[in-house]
Amino acid sequence: MTTPKLAFSVQEYETRIAKTRKSMEAAGIQTLVITDPANMAWLTGYDGWSFYVHQAVVLGPTGLPLWWGRAMDGLGAKRTVFMSHDHIFGYEDIYVQNPEKHPMQDLAQLVAAQGWQNTHIGLEMDNYYFTAAAYLSLVQALPGATWADANGLVNWQRAVKSETEITYMRRAAKIVEKMHATILETATPGMKKNDLVANIYHAAISGADGHWGDYPSIVPLAPSGADASAPHLTWDDAELKVGEATFFEIAGVHRRYHAPQSRTLFFGEPPKKYREAENAVLEAVAAGMAKAKPGNFAEDIAIAFNSTLNKLGFEKDSRCGYPIGLSYPPDWGERTYSLRKNDKTVLEAGMTFHFMPALWLDDGAIEITEPVLITETGAENLCNTPAQLAVKG
Amino acid sequence: MTTPKLAFSVQEYETRIAKTRKSMEAAGIQTLVITDPANMAWLTGYDGWSFYVHQAVVLGPTGLPLWWGRAMDGLGAKRTVFMSHDHIFGYEDIYVQNPEKHPMQDLAQLVAAQGWQNTHIGLEMDNYYFTAAAYLSLVQALPGATWADANGLVNWQRAVKSETEITYMRRAAKIVEKMHATILETATPGMKKNDLVANIYHAAISGADGHWGDYPSIVPLAPSGADASAPHLTWDDAELKVGEATFFEIAGVHRRYHAPQSRTLFFGEPPKKYREAENAVLEAVAAGMAKAKPGNFAEDIAIAFNSTLNKLGFEKDSRCGYPIGLSYPPDWGERTYSLRKNDKTVLEAGMTFHFMPALWLDDGAIEITEPVLITETGAENLCNTPAQLAVKG
Repeated sequence: MTTPKLAFSVQEYETRIAKTRKSMEAAGIQTLVITDPANMAWLTGYDGWSFYVHQAVVLGPTGLPLWWGRAMDGLGAKRTVFMSHDHIFGYEDIYVQNPEKHPMQDLAQLVAAQGWQNTHIGLEMDNYYFTAAAYLSLVQALPGATWADANGLVNWQRAVKSETEITYMRRAAKIVEKMHATILETATPGMKKNDLVANIYHAAISGADGHWGDYPSIVPLAPSGADASAPHLTWDDAELKVGEATFFEIAGVHRRYHAPQSRTLFFGEPPKKYREAENAVLEAVAAGMAKAKPGNFAEDIAIAFNSTLNKLGFEKDSRCGYPIGLSYPPDWGERTYSLRKNDKTVLEAGMTFHFMPALWLDDGAIEITEPVLITETGAENLCNTPAQLAVKG
Repeated sequence: MTTPKLAFSVQEYETRIAKTRKSMEAAGIQTLVITDPANMAWLTGYDGWSFYVHQAVVLGPTGLPLWWGRAMDGLGAKRTVFMSHDHIFGYEDIYVQNPEKHPMQDLAQLVAAQGWQNTHIGLEMDNYYFTAAAYLSLVQALPGATWADANGLVNWQRAVKSETEITYMRRAAKIVEKMHATILETATPGMKKNDLVANIYHAAISGADGHWGDYPSIVPLAPSGADASAPHLTWDDAELKVGEATFFEIAGVHRRYHAPQSRTLFFGEPPKKYREAENAVLEAVAAGMAKAKPGNFAEDIAIAFNSTLNKLGFEKDSRCGYPIGLSYPPDWGERTYSLRKNDKTVLEAGMTFHFMPALWLDDGAIEITEPVLITETGAENLCNTPAQLAVKG
């Protein structure tokens, strides 16, 4: 039997499972079908780029989790999960992308074989990868079960990070610092955007301080000039220009743990408006950080941030942050609380979020954002990158 | 008004829409809700990393497609779609990852505002990003509509590529050739895997022959030794070793068009079994390629490939290929036909697929795979990388 290379102790996985079961019990859920790749990894260690086919981790009323997926990916499960091989179940390749046969028919058989076919089953209803067809197929194949929406149930267990998780995020933070340093060092007017992104990727994957870089759940977002008024454009081969701002929304990643951080680069003397926006963002972030401490609500940070921003003549309609940690594409957020008004999530030591005060201007944007850890007494920025508009040339 | 940087002529988008409408009519579908990011891009030009929130393109009974998504991503739509701005609709940020409000409630209002609320509506039921919750929310909000599973409907329209699409795929093929050349040049025993992957990414994004590299829909898969018996593991910082094989399943990408190609690298003299596997794969691929021509079925390639492989003492349970072209994470396949027995899809000139004869061995794998174009008379390998086990040292 292969010994898997686990990122955490078996004890840590067991603690996570116990915590999840407690939350299942509170919701009256006996069996949980987990399709979010980050939740699958958090509960079992499973790691592989196989979420483009149907797969799940099933946590029944008793026992360890079961890994279920395409048979060939069962080999990857054997090499990455903490459970013994009799907890790994693969379906035949004929189920793959075949309109005649849905893999969830096979999962239903597995659930029934455990005797769980008549239990109250929780599903991650709004998770990427749990499609409408998967839902209909599973419900049809288990007529004796009753169903609950367990979307976010495991995500919420992940909110407070363990010591080892924080260690991985600190390593990721050093990697993103290096990525921003690489941008400052190598970006020049006239350089093609994709050549700069190639440098960013090289820095990201080679890692920092002896710790290797993993792939980010969102590719580098790096729009320039007016393109930067749109938040989620990627790149092409347009040349960097004097008199134009480019924002870099990027993350360092170590063992799937993310530290996102953004900076904005300007070639030449930034216009007054950019300097005013920079000052407003920094002052508003400081006001928000003062509210980032155990016992406060998530909204307290947003209210302090937004009121300071408004006082200085700027507005931001969208949320100014979200939780981060372990993730898989297409999102590095944990999708639980948000830093926005009316979010009464109570902050606790060990929570980590991306403080994301992006400011959209008519003709571009300013992004100076940070990965933040809630400590026993307040909050810590995991990065030391200078918090300012980066100006070159 | 911003002029978007379109990758194709408006006429090409109009042709795609007409082709899609014909297929909708054949299925009795009046309104199509498209959530697959590749299908959204193919019909409108939309490009952005925003598929982590709910979004769609709606093609009604008449008129141009409507883009719908998060309000801030409407700015990205304005910069990338061919339609005028009155075809772009954004929902408010409060709908984002909020268990109390599902964005599909907003989409239902948009459909109703067009007068399409009582039509027969097609949904991509098994698409990533069309979740169970999205389905239930939309169906509830449009009680007068009837529903059809339109999964794959647009994907099938994409199977035969246009001249411009083939041009982009040829550029992507040159990029993946360069990526494999970079592996051969820079890999050495003792090198950390992530340092090699950093080089691969740098080659991928800087591009080739003056054409820029885009991000791949699957990250480099690069397992070594026994890890290579599992198909979808990514990388860590383990050192490359003499006497061990590593396969590199990677793609060159230009403007979201993919050319995947795999090679296997061995340090030192490969064991007899690897040489036998190499010979078997190459002979079986040649037999498959001889059947790759217009008028034949997809299964003809698989049958020729598998029977040759079996004759030489090897077996492969899984499909040996799938269509490729435009794509977004998490998959670079088009999810229509497969190269496997019983797939009676008729091959046509302009079809493109990844001929994927990966051979899983007990203690590793051999991957020598190619991006293939069906021509008027047969098939063309888009790459010139030597088709062999790469041996170094």
